Amino acid sequence: MTNADAISKISTPSLIVDEARMLRNISRLQRHLDSLNVSIRPHLKTVKSVDAAKRILSSGNGPATVSTLKEAEVFASAGVRDILYAVGIGPQKLDRVLALRAGGCDLSVVLDTPEQARAVVEASRRAKDGIPALIEIDSDGHRAGLKPDDPALIDIGRILHEEGAVLRGVVTHAGESYGVVGAEALAAFAERERLAAVTAAEALRAAGLPCPTVSVGSTPTAHFARDLSGVTEVRAGVYVFFDLVMAGIGVCSLDDIALSVLTTVIGHQKERGWIIVDAGWMALSRDRGTASQAVDQAYGVVCDIHGDVIDDLIVKSANQEHGILALRPGSSARLPDFPLGTQLRILPNHACATGAQFASYTVLPAGGSTTLAQWPRFSGW
Amino acid sequence: MTNADAISKISTPSLIVDEARMLRNISRLQRHLDSLNVSIRPHLKTVKSVDAAKRILSSGNGPATVSTLKEAEVFASAGVRDILYAVGIGPQKLDRVLALRAGGCDLSVVLDTPEQARAVVEASRRAKDGIPALIEIDSDGHRAGLKPDDPALIDIGRILHEEGAVLRGVVTHAGESYGVVGAEALAAFAERERLAAVTAAEALRAAGLPCPTVSVGSTPTAHFARDLSGVTEVRAGVYVFFDLVMAGIGVCSLDDIALSVLTTVIGHQKERGWIIVDAGWMALSRDRGTASQAVDQAYGVVCDIHGDVIDDLIVKSANQEHGILALRPGSSARLPDFPLGTQLRILPNHACATGAQFASYTVLPAGGSTTLAQWPRFSGW
Repeated sequence: MTNADAISKISTPSLIVDEARMLRNISRLQRHLDSLNVSIRPHLKTVKSVDAAKRILSSGNGPATVSTLKEAEVFASAGVRDILYAVGIGPQKLDRVLALRAGGCDLSVVLDTPEQARAVVEASRRAKDGIPALIEIDSDGHRAGLKPDDPALIDIGRILHEEGAVLRGVVTHAGESYGVVGAEALAAFAERERLAAVTAAEALRAAGLPCPTVSVGSTPTAHFARDLSGVTEVRAGVYVFFDLVMAGIGVCSLDDIALSVLTTVIGHQKERGWIIVDAGWMALSRDRGTASQAVDQAYGVVCDIHGDVIDDLIVKSANQEHGILALRPGSSARLPDFPLGTQLRILPNHACATGAQFASYTVLPAGGSTTLAQWPRFSGW
Repeated sequence: MTNADAISKISTPSLIVDEARMLRNISRLQRHLDSLNVSIRPHLKTVKSVDAAKRILSSGNGPATVSTLKEAEVFASAGVRDILYAVGIGPQKLDRVLALRAGGCDLSVVLDTPEQARAVVEASRRAKDGIPALIEIDSDGHRAGLKPDDPALIDIGRILHEEGAVLRGVVTHAGESYGVVGAEALAAFAERERLAAVTAAEALRAAGLPCPTVSVGSTPTAHFARDLSGVTEVRAGVYVFFDLVMAGIGVCSLDDIALSVLTTVIGHQKERGWIIVDAGWMALSRDRGTASQAVDQAYGVVCDIHGDVIDDLIVKSANQEHGILALRPGSSARLPDFPLGTQLRILPNHACATGAQFASYTVLPAGGSTTLAQWPRFSGW
């Protein structure tokens, strides 16, 4: 029996992980960062799974990055002891932060305003537990954070350091790197990210403040950074699975994508050149991240049950529970003749979004075993 | 205490239902269809909640429409006894169909090929239980289904009726009606949908075949149909909550939208005119259904905690756990000065997609009670 025989028995739509590809992706980034003498703090928001995290975290207990306190709570319960909650802290969330810390997890938070710093100080004093906070730096105008030369940086640093919290360092994320293509452009972005974080760290230190952690990262910049001097850790998440958006900017190839949605042919509209499958946007997600790329993959690239890409066949559109497959516009390929009941696999635009539509992964194990594993996923906040 | 006081205590992001608006929406469509002497078969794929379904189904036990067998299984367990599974049946799913029927639920299926009809016949014979099937009719080139004059219609009808299944009737869905605007255009679409279904039903009857059910529907056409002669039932789902897509085509107003995402301000980028909140696309979904409408609402319209729309404030972009609020391009309004921790509510583009990101609804009860209810939601297939 092959892997394909094993998955042909499961109901569709289902979320499939090719564990061998996943382990290869994890090793690839680890090797690159080892060569730059910097450690990795994997972002677990992509996988949201304790079983997957066990394969990602080199020691079982961290370090890790999360995007929600629910993730922090689940991974802390599973033994992860060093977690960065990398979304600006809301004051109403500090009680949950304190509870996690009281349970033995070194949870740190992120902020970029004096108001947040004062709320963290107040909570730290109340609990007699200095909450570690990193100041968010804006390296590319993407979202949140202070410019490295913003005078508020020192003000916030002083509030944290002098009034009862812990100034852990600085953190930045070059989210705009998803919009550039190729090794040179991504290397330049990585340098921009490094420079912003290191400049901010030096400003804090010049003001007599500590800055032990200098944290940068995004999957594209992590892979193309050539020098990370002054950086202490790199964060990345989607590198574990990769996806069509990452392939579109040249970070991986289609053969590296470890996540796919298993689906079944449920109809045809032969005159229109359509094949209808039971994976709609509820399974694939509404993410259309390749729409702005050179090659728009619509709702995903179609593979056979072995995971081999079928020439020019994409999910051209999606309703809630219907996917419509068609040849890419302008293709000279012939539409395959898949009978009703044929199983296919779809590579997703965005692994984080597609993963979130499912409650578990069905895993094709590395090492050739055909006994499928189930890894539960969680969701919510 | 007011509703706003009650929800100010809950964690964010959370999914809020305004039950009074929901009940008003349910009554509105019921009254319209009563006036046309046709019954409703609500589509429960939008709510995916037994508590919500109890308010939607006029009798507790159906009729209902679903988009997945998981929905059929959950609602059948809750006592719904007449369910249409309205996605083309895959042969691998027939065992679950038979199990539901053996449990006492009159579950019917949809198909549009002789291959599917033969698979249904074979399963019916095997189980000694004639599975009721409706033949899908294509009224607008949207997706699946046969043209009403396709000779395969009669072939499929004969297979079902003469070989051991049950020919229950015809079903169509004018999915393209989401793309037209205003009462006249939507009324014309409703007539197109009616005519396709009735023409197909008459063709079956002329061939000596039964066609007891003539099922049409979409939320836009259901509200604007002026004559449903020959139709026996109307399906609609999103009418229960409504959303920005429905408001954009004139089916409802913003004040009718019963679903919103509660969020908290977690930062500002004042120079750029941005307010950052803790509802990103993981909470709002990646649905950008208003992108092709006259007014693009980006990732949603922002309301205060009472649900009152704030002039020109939208979720201009979204990352996984960050939403970025800004004034609509070209607006002359002033950006509100919301302090850190302020709670806001976001009206979604697409209720089905946003709802699917959450495991429960927090309900502001009709009748003025400030005791919030929780209605669990389910997901999966």
